[in-house]
Amino acid sequence: MGSNAERVERKETTRIETFSDGVFAFAITLLVLYLKDPTADVGGNLLQGLLTEWPAFFAFVTSFATILIMWVGHHEMFTAIGRIDRGFMFLNGLLLFFVTLTPFTTSLVANHIVSSDSQTAAAVYAGSFLLLSLSWGILGRHVFRKKLLLASVAAESFVRIQTRGAFIGLTLYILALAIAFFSGIASVVLILMVAVFYAVGPTSQR
Amino acid sequence: MGSNAERVERKETTRIETFSDGVFAFAITLLVLYLKDPTADVGGNLLQGLLTEWPAFFAFVTSFATILIMWVGHHEMFTAIGRIDRGFMFLNGLLLFFVTLTPFTTSLVANHIVSSDSQTAAAVYAGSFLLLSLSWGILGRHVFRKKLLLASVAAESFVRIQTRGAFIGLTLYILALAIAFFSGIASVVLILMVAVFYAVGPTSQR
Amino acid sequence: MGSNAERVERKETTRIETFSDGVFAFAITLLVLYLKDPTADVGGNLLQGLLTEWPAFFAFVTSFATILIMWVGHHEMFTAIGRIDRGFMFLNGLLLFFVTLTPFTTSLVANHIVSSDSQTAAAVYAGSFLLLSLSWGILGRHVFRKKLLLASVAAESFVRIQTRGAFIGLTLYILALAIAFFSGIASVVLILMVAVFYAVGPTSQR
Amino acid sequence: MGSNAERVERKETTRIETFSDGVFAFAITLLVLYLKDPTADVGGNLLQGLLTEWPAFFAFVTSFATILIMWVGHHEMFTAIGRIDRGFMFLNGLLLFFVTLTPFTTSLVANHIVSSDSQTAAAVYAGSFLLLSLSWGILGRHVFRKKLLLASVAAESFVRIQTRGAFIGLTLYILALAIAFFSGIASVVLILMVAVFYAVGPTSQR
Repeated sequence: MGSNAERVERKETTRIETFSDGVFAFAITLLVLYLKDPTADVGGNLLQGLLTEWPAFFAFVTSFATILIMWVGHHEMFTAIGRIDRGFMFLNGLLLFFVTLTPFTTSLVANHIVSSDSQTAAAVYAGSFLLLSLSWGILGRHVFRKKLLLASVAAESFVRIQTRGAFIGLTLYILALAIAFFSGIASVVLILMVAVFYAVGPTSQR
Repeated sequence: MGSNAERVERKETTRIETFSDGVFAFAITLLVLYLKDPTADVGGNLLQGLLTEWPAFFAFVTSFATILIMWVGHHEMFTAIGRIDRGFMFLNGLLLFFVTLTPFTTSLVANHIVSSDSQTAAAVYAGSFLLLSLSWGILGRHVFRKKLLLASVAAESFVRIQTRGAFIGLTLYILALAIAFFSGIASVVLILMVAVFYAVGPTSQR
Repeated sequence: MGSNAERVERKETTRIETFSDGVFAFAITLLVLYLKDPTADVGGNLLQGLLTEWPAFFAFVTSFATILIMWVGHHEMFTAIGRIDRGFMFLNGLLLFFVTLTPFTTSLVANHIVSSDSQTAAAVYAGSFLLLSLSWGILGRHVFRKKLLLASVAAESFVRIQTRGAFIGLTLYILALAIAFFSGIASVVLILMVAVFYAVGPTSQR
Repeated sequence: MGSNAERVERKETTRIETFSDGVFAFAITLLVLYLKDPTADVGGNLLQGLLTEWPAFFAFVTSFATILIMWVGHHEMFTAIGRIDRGFMFLNGLLLFFVTLTPFTTSLVANHIVSSDSQTAAAVYAGSFLLLSLSWGILGRHVFRKKLLLASVAAESFVRIQTRGAFIGLTLYILALAIAFFSGIASVVLILMVAVFYAVGPTSQR
């Protein structure tokens, strides 16, 4: 494979990053549309209204933090990838599908976390992150099997990091899904803690 | 044409990709705005509401998959293109016009696929994808006629791939449009199958 | 100025293009949010509803075409620019301000073009494009005065093209603003014709 | 550290810029969604309605100008940065969090600046910009401490500029927050003046 082919591959890698970054950036920004002026329809005191709206802020912060760590992980995966194939593009698309769903599942949590449907809302929320981390694991496996890594990257190290990421994600989101059937709010708190832990915890030694 | 001119052309190619990627990424993410909390206005049980909302999810998945394969195809076309002209930019703009329309046509399917207007909604939906694949064919033809391909790309191979893509798109979307007048839901199922087939089918030998 | 400084300048030029492309792409995609399911609130026949909604489609097409030619022009201006200064960034920001306003002014046209407020809506619409083309002229002037052009670009040719663009824009949008006070719809038709003429007309000899 | 590692770092720097630019560009464009057709629900004369809607335009202009100067500052910071670490990515994420909040706080100002809740709305608005400039200061400090600057950039000069920026931001937004408790509108006028001053003032000697 000549150097021209390599340049084409590099260009493709860059473009799928641009598209993915667009979807991540857009999904993270769309979350704000579900924060609404609490007095818009019903009137009343603004400060009181904002305080009553805390579930929406809580859901907003949780989803923002989760999409952000997902994006950081996506970013780090791409620094190890030298070329992509069509399977990669569609598995990446599956991952982006669940990223895109987040504003919707967040709105369910914001509207229902203090209502009787709290458990359903949290289960849908945790379930969508579970599927997101599952599609991540499948993507990492595909990268390894199809040898899409940069020559300079040690394949074992990549697999180890992917496995760790998949382990954290899958285990904790399965746990969050299970907890959702008992307490919706505890489930969302766990999901927020996953994001915080991942951001500042000892595993981020890089 | 010197190497400086080539660098300028390459920069232009990159920038039209960035703009197009932006439109694809936004359009695919905007789809989520049409997924609504089913109990927001009318109240009721959340789980029940989500199950009743299946046409919206069905339309969401179909449109997400279709825009994704369109983006993959757009991506692949650009790997073959060495320079662009003004005509390319406007034909690309026409293609993006129909991409941009998708969130609207998707909402029509989501709202009407189980109502008496199911056929109208599916016809508009299939029709917009038909026009999208038509504008794709015109763009591919323009690339070939104006010799915008990279020197390293075999023009015949490009035309063959474009023809295949145009054939799949036009034929199947015409079929979907025709089916829409008998059964709206069958038409949308066909459109979803086109996307799935294109993603995993034998033609994606790359 | 050494080659390192040049690389930094080039990087800055690229980044302001990325940001501007984002705003253009986002504004052009947001237009679709103002196309609504005509039967969502009032019920009735979908086909009938879509036909009655023609002013929204008319405004959508006009704004899409106008933002697209603006983006093409922006793209072409950047191929001539070698470096940027802070003034450029803020004048470019002024230009993007009026691009961002377009979805709002488009919704006014969509809602009012067949009502008694048709003239007000068209005047606001034409007025915002007038200010957009004015800020374009100011930006072009700034580029010339501050010598921000690439060494390889003939400054006179750049000024001639800018002047032509400003002449077309300012004159025709002033005309559209004047016409708006007599007929709202004639004003919007003129604005659409400006975009079509610019796309396919004899001036696009490139 | 070899030249390959440097290239990887450069690629990472570029990608975090792309993501950040996406968030800035979307947040600045989303502001327009809060400009609404004043006659959509209540009817009445369009011109009259638009004039009555001045607080929405006032808030729109203020937020657009503020996000724009924030983006220009972000852009200038990145020209000095040679590599990034994980801490940088999360602190940058914190900064983007407050950028993302802006459309929401802007809508509060638009809806309440002439009502009895004017002070609450302005306090939330000023408070979010205060936290944004605070997270900026923390990010700048992190860059300096972790030696993330380009070798060619004088660290003292960077710190001086960051300190100046933090000083302007923190002081003036604290002032705006304090003023909000007496007059909501005076607070927002001050925030607009900060943006205008920063754009055209003597400090922008670059």
